[in-house]
Amino acid sequence: MGRTADYSKQNCAIAGAMQIVGDPWTLLIIRDAFMGVRRFEQWQERLGVARNVLAARLKTLTANGVMESRLYCARPPRREYVLTKKGRDLYPVLMTMLTWGERYVHPEAEVTEGPRFRHTGCGQGFKARIHCEACGEPTGPHDLVAVTAPGLRTEPAEAA
Amino acid sequence: MGRTADYSKQNCAIAGAMQIVGDPWTLLIIRDAFMGVRRFEQWQERLGVARNVLAARLKTLTANGVMESRLYCARPPRREYVLTKKGRDLYPVLMTMLTWGERYVHPEAEVTEGPRFRHTGCGQGFKARIHCEACGEPTGPHDLVAVTAPGLRTEPAEAA
Repeated sequence: MGRTADYSKQNCAIAGAMQIVGDPWTLLIIRDAFMGVRRFEQWQERLGVARNVLAARLKTLTANGVMESRLYCARPPRREYVLTKKGRDLYPVLMTMLTWGERYVHPEAEVTEGPRFRHTGCGQGFKARIHCEACGEPTGPHDLVAVTAPGLRTEPAEAA
Repeated sequence: MGRTADYSKQNCAIAGAMQIVGDPWTLLIIRDAFMGVRRFEQWQERLGVARNVLAARLKTLTANGVMESRLYCARPPRREYVLTKKGRDLYPVLMTMLTWGERYVHPEAEVTEGPRFRHTGCGQGFKARIHCEACGEPTGPHDLVAVTAPGLRTEPAEAA
């Protein structure tokens, strides 16, 4: 997939994040890494992704510090890939995406090929809700004001 | 960008969500919609995206029910685009991505081209943390167990 679009020049944290993990294959590789996948052949089998594409994505993820590779066999040389702290901190992104996808894309699927989660604390099926890290309160678009967004209004959009 | 990769065949809520919003331009269009952008020319100016790409993305977002278009001028016909409920429910995805991007991609940027937010409830800069919707408790990867994920272990990966 082309990565030449100039969105990457935007000095915006969302754009910056998308530049690293905006590729669908990349997020699915990270999804499987959270589920314990560490080796090339496992991803290849799980995802059915072309080998050259998978190799390129793993290389980029490693270069960006989202994953790190380790030699698990010296002869022949074989590497495995594990999430770094930076990579593991993508968990909220995946979980909010999972929650949205379960609600709107696969609401009917009781069993999917992908993971569904149960929260061990309360035993319920897990759906992510976002809270303010500072005060712990649940938040929605109307609880936030933009403090920097040149040329734009300073409040999120009204309900349609 | 090609959308022919067979990741879209995966019956997984994350893959399904990525199929709709995994494109970087698409998420930036939605980002700006949250900030009040409704018209083609505004997005085009903000993003510097090619007109044919922007038109295609808005068409797809409308077809997928993430946005809806309204005629705001009959002659000449001019449409504006607003987020639907389905679209507004992408807010947690954007906010977790923003939080990750601020932490790892643009940690130095005090002022960015994109939005930064303040939580009106507590007055602090907003960082998203995810909680379980059912019980309200904050959650991390180790608080969840996968209930469906054929061929994979049933717990998230260990720390690297």
